[in-house]
Amino acid sequence: MIIVLKPGTDKKTVQELLDHIAETGLKPLHMPGEERVVLGAIGDERILGRLHLENHPSVEEVKPVLAPYKLVSREVRPEDTVVSVGGVPIGNGFFTVIAGPCAVESLEQFRDTAKAVVDAGASALRGGAFKPRTSPYSFQGLGLEGLEILSRVSRELGVPTVTEVVEVADIEAVAEHADAFQVGSRNMQNFRLLMELGQSRKPVLLKRGMAATVEDLLMAAEYILSQGNSDVILCERGIRTFETSTRNTLDLNAVPFIKQRSHLPVLVDPSHGTGLRELVAPMSQAAAAAGADGLLIEVHRNPAEALSDGRQSLFPDQFSALMDGIRPLVAALGRKLNTTVAA
Amino acid sequence: MIIVLKPGTDKKTVQELLDHIAETGLKPLHMPGEERVVLGAIGDERILGRLHLENHPSVEEVKPVLAPYKLVSREVRPEDTVVSVGGVPIGNGFFTVIAGPCAVESLEQFRDTAKAVVDAGASALRGGAFKPRTSPYSFQGLGLEGLEILSRVSRELGVPTVTEVVEVADIEAVAEHADAFQVGSRNMQNFRLLMELGQSRKPVLLKRGMAATVEDLLMAAEYILSQGNSDVILCERGIRTFETSTRNTLDLNAVPFIKQRSHLPVLVDPSHGTGLRELVAPMSQAAAAAGADGLLIEVHRNPAEALSDGRQSLFPDQFSALMDGIRPLVAALGRKLNTTVAA
Amino acid sequence: MIIVLKPGTDKKTVQELLDHIAETGLKPLHMPGEERVVLGAIGDERILGRLHLENHPSVEEVKPVLAPYKLVSREVRPEDTVVSVGGVPIGNGFFTVIAGPCAVESLEQFRDTAKAVVDAGASALRGGAFKPRTSPYSFQGLGLEGLEILSRVSRELGVPTVTEVVEVADIEAVAEHADAFQVGSRNMQNFRLLMELGQSRKPVLLKRGMAATVEDLLMAAEYILSQGNSDVILCERGIRTFETSTRNTLDLNAVPFIKQRSHLPVLVDPSHGTGLRELVAPMSQAAAAAGADGLLIEVHRNPAEALSDGRQSLFPDQFSALMDGIRPLVAALGRKLNTTVAA
Amino acid sequence: MIIVLKPGTDKKTVQELLDHIAETGLKPLHMPGEERVVLGAIGDERILGRLHLENHPSVEEVKPVLAPYKLVSREVRPEDTVVSVGGVPIGNGFFTVIAGPCAVESLEQFRDTAKAVVDAGASALRGGAFKPRTSPYSFQGLGLEGLEILSRVSRELGVPTVTEVVEVADIEAVAEHADAFQVGSRNMQNFRLLMELGQSRKPVLLKRGMAATVEDLLMAAEYILSQGNSDVILCERGIRTFETSTRNTLDLNAVPFIKQRSHLPVLVDPSHGTGLRELVAPMSQAAAAAGADGLLIEVHRNPAEALSDGRQSLFPDQFSALMDGIRPLVAALGRKLNTTVAA
Repeated sequence: MIIVLKPGTDKKTVQELLDHIAETGLKPLHMPGEERVVLGAIGDERILGRLHLENHPSVEEVKPVLAPYKLVSREVRPEDTVVSVGGVPIGNGFFTVIAGPCAVESLEQFRDTAKAVVDAGASALRGGAFKPRTSPYSFQGLGLEGLEILSRVSRELGVPTVTEVVEVADIEAVAEHADAFQVGSRNMQNFRLLMELGQSRKPVLLKRGMAATVEDLLMAAEYILSQGNSDVILCERGIRTFETSTRNTLDLNAVPFIKQRSHLPVLVDPSHGTGLRELVAPMSQAAAAAGADGLLIEVHRNPAEALSDGRQSLFPDQFSALMDGIRPLVAALGRKLNTTVAA
Repeated sequence: MIIVLKPGTDKKTVQELLDHIAETGLKPLHMPGEERVVLGAIGDERILGRLHLENHPSVEEVKPVLAPYKLVSREVRPEDTVVSVGGVPIGNGFFTVIAGPCAVESLEQFRDTAKAVVDAGASALRGGAFKPRTSPYSFQGLGLEGLEILSRVSRELGVPTVTEVVEVADIEAVAEHADAFQVGSRNMQNFRLLMELGQSRKPVLLKRGMAATVEDLLMAAEYILSQGNSDVILCERGIRTFETSTRNTLDLNAVPFIKQRSHLPVLVDPSHGTGLRELVAPMSQAAAAAGADGLLIEVHRNPAEALSDGRQSLFPDQFSALMDGIRPLVAALGRKLNTTVAA
Repeated sequence: MIIVLKPGTDKKTVQELLDHIAETGLKPLHMPGEERVVLGAIGDERILGRLHLENHPSVEEVKPVLAPYKLVSREVRPEDTVVSVGGVPIGNGFFTVIAGPCAVESLEQFRDTAKAVVDAGASALRGGAFKPRTSPYSFQGLGLEGLEILSRVSRELGVPTVTEVVEVADIEAVAEHADAFQVGSRNMQNFRLLMELGQSRKPVLLKRGMAATVEDLLMAAEYILSQGNSDVILCERGIRTFETSTRNTLDLNAVPFIKQRSHLPVLVDPSHGTGLRELVAPMSQAAAAAGADGLLIEVHRNPAEALSDGRQSLFPDQFSALMDGIRPLVAALGRKLNTTVAA
Repeated sequence: MIIVLKPGTDKKTVQELLDHIAETGLKPLHMPGEERVVLGAIGDERILGRLHLENHPSVEEVKPVLAPYKLVSREVRPEDTVVSVGGVPIGNGFFTVIAGPCAVESLEQFRDTAKAVVDAGASALRGGAFKPRTSPYSFQGLGLEGLEILSRVSRELGVPTVTEVVEVADIEAVAEHADAFQVGSRNMQNFRLLMELGQSRKPVLLKRGMAATVEDLLMAAEYILSQGNSDVILCERGIRTFETSTRNTLDLNAVPFIKQRSHLPVLVDPSHGTGLRELVAPMSQAAAAAGADGLLIEVHRNPAEALSDGRQSLFPDQFSALMDGIRPLVAALGRKLNTTVAA
């Protein structure tokens, strides 16, 4: 940790700060420059964080040297983590496509869509029962009834499911009906929810927040791992920028950046990441080529009737064409496409 | 609502879409242009939203004409709402300063800080018992013990308090100990929490999310009002941009923009909005001049020892100087500075 | 064009606005809604733009229906444009890799780097003689001497070159020594420069500005085409966002979005788009998979000695490995990798 | 300068890097931590910059300790710079309002508008003769004819003028007709233009770029000062963010942040900073309260007829009302409002 002092800080204050660092058992360093005095403190950055040196009136800026995350990092665990979602392995060379409607709207709608995506090659299903919506006047999901539809179709087709959980009180019900929890963008820093999920034994698919840096995302995952659950799958789904031609800006840079620093698998959601149906296929290919471990894609048996996110949902035949394009690409990239457990 | 069709849409599809609009009781409009056909649908935009015309494969874009919020808008309620926080009126010409530490750390720390800010002219107290922190290794707040300290000092000084609630399960405890709920930036779109707070009878101070547009903020408030609680205070606290010299970019444009469209009071939090102690006073003045109904300011009896956000917390004498600068400004702006209820 | 009026606009004003629209030869439309009156104006959006209806005090908002660009759009020219850079075809199924150092630093440095990238499979060279640098104290390029080195090495190796032009006065010299002009991000809206380049007969590689939307980029290209030069190659090179882990956020969404709307070829610059050497190879693959027509990559014979952008420059053997990864991918995508003209 | 090495860097490389630092005459520092080795280099950061240590394959990150700007900083010149624009002092307690139309459209239009703003209390005039426009089909300004109108009205009213220069070749003509150059947002990093203006003897009003950080802005000013012209006025005019309700996000944080670090005067342009006429007055007040040295405001004798930026231009009576609101505020803030030289 590097501590830049304000111009004109006197020697006594400098010495007090050095003593303060030494008291914690860290090694202090004194670097008097031409214009500023800079201090260093060597040791565990988490202890350093507790010093709160940035609060001191003579301190201009504190620059951490090391990343603040630990358990999610490759320095702690060099080899890739493989997370099993109902038997489907995610990470370490496996390429996984999870597909389904934005929301579970009815048994027929979900079953038809699920059959179509499984036929086309998806190896897990997605579908929301609890829908966080910008407007209170929009469809908010079927709730428990949606969960029941989800698990029924999952059993019928023999394919695992992922569904969103938005509230601590719902964790138990979701765990009962689905194979993995999804934490949505708006809840990426709902730390109470993350901590409770850290005590669950089901995997967590953690979506990046709209204004979250890569470091914020890794710190959110750290919350879950710090509670004992290391089955975390990260998901890049686009960030908010000034660009308005697409719903979000899909930050594919984040994929290799995270894969180089963390052992956790990384999926990409090109549906939310673009918001436009016609960009989903090319950006799915781009995600695979960037090194993603799989995709999360919205498909609806008839997007024109979708109660949410229809503009970005694929028609079943478009999803089928997407899978046809992904297969040779995944092969050329030397990875193995997961097929359904049932198959 | 304006519906732009894709080039080459045939007449049959156009007619089907017009019929579809008419079936809902809305008035359809046909605008054949040189390059594109454009349709209109006149009537209640909420019904229009349910049409999901944006999902249709022949539709390029749907442009809403009206704002999606209703209950929060001046069109529904032209006069300013005044929200009472434990007897302190917020809105409609009153200028209110709420101050205190980021987190309640101990009885002594909170009491000392509270006394200092009340002496200097704050009319309500802030202090977090539940702290959402980016890192799981940071101080997470005292929880229930913090709430008890908060209410004890509040009674001692006769000054109302605002504190953050992060989870539905905590609403009751917070309501018992504080005069107003604060919903933090990270929870601005925790819709379950918003809906539960909408059924409470205590006021809600709703902070803008880091990636939330003004419209998103107003829609979040709409969730609360739609459940029956109209005592909502909005709070601009900075958004995330590419600028790194400050912690956030304080978007003061939002203050007059919202005040012109909504009847709800708007506070500004220059502590989070800048992240730098030395910018808090000038930006407090700027907030007042932009038309804010008050300020939310972090003060600590000794920021060098603060367990969170010390870099942006004022020393008590800095807060006192800030109040000295605010008084003539508020007077010049023709508004009335709230003083403590106790005084 | 849709014109939303302010609430309470009287009938006389509405009629005046309708008359004003009709006077220009456009077709006016009247759409009285429940809360607002909305007007339409049908016809050429460029005439509509000259009405400046957004300025009228009774007008709340003007929403254009059509994109403001014309000559660059597929509606004007459906088939892909192929731009020849010194004989190397760019666009329409050809995949082109342009590589070289950020700046031409010396004859030896440029020649060594150029040989290395050509050996590895690049089909054109890049290298800056005029360098726009954030700091006046940084290396500003060799100027004319750099151009001479560029053209000398180009002739020696029989490979065409692209180099940046920053000023109208330099156009002639650059045209004499290079096969294509590069317009850098900082000059994307230097409209005087664009107009002059529109009168040149050499191709223009136009890089997206850091804060430019896709529409801004297409409008900048429109400036060049409107002056008669239709040999424009667009280049996505990352935009500025809140994410700080990478130098820029590479917006690959823009690639298929533009390709669907414009006939111009689109390259991607993963060097500036990431700022990190270790992300260049995966993001090059991602760019190809997203549909880009090629890459612009910074390589230096020894990045540790580079006078600019060394952190993102590849070592020659890294570039060679990148090309080995690109070849099977381009084949799997059904496109043809350009090889050097000389070969 | 702090140099963080990659994990596993061997001792020999560390020693080579330390020797490399020492060779330049700087003082090297060795800080071996638990997970990483960190090096320091103490001395003039500009020499350090030339080392390009960030390029070295064993270097993970280089963190500069000092700001990269020098001549613009308060460390070089502690007292406020006062820039005279045709006799009107800008900076150091004087509050200056510069107003006029976006573009000079005709002698009558400019004269009428100029008279109105001078009558209302503006002390200098603005008006563009060269207009950078996003679309090639928009009005591009009157060019030389516009400059002549500008200087004629300036002489008639005895009030100085500021006008934009977009190209090196126009500097002489602009210097002849106006009292200060304006560099627009799109040209903030047109370094060739900045360097030429650095050799002029007329003041330069430098507007912040849409994607420019405060540091970028100060570095752009450093270009001008480094060439000998220290009469630079900075101008905050809004940055590009995800917020779409306003044209830009006016970053008033930048005003006190810059004033604390630089001796140069800072103006604010609330017209471009909001893009909405009805936000100009409150944000003008906010700018003054944040510590700005003045305002740059667009006014048009009849905005409904403006050829550019009419939506954000004030009517003359609105500008007059704005000035009436500014006077008591500037007085309450203890500053002196400039009045016209002529008066």
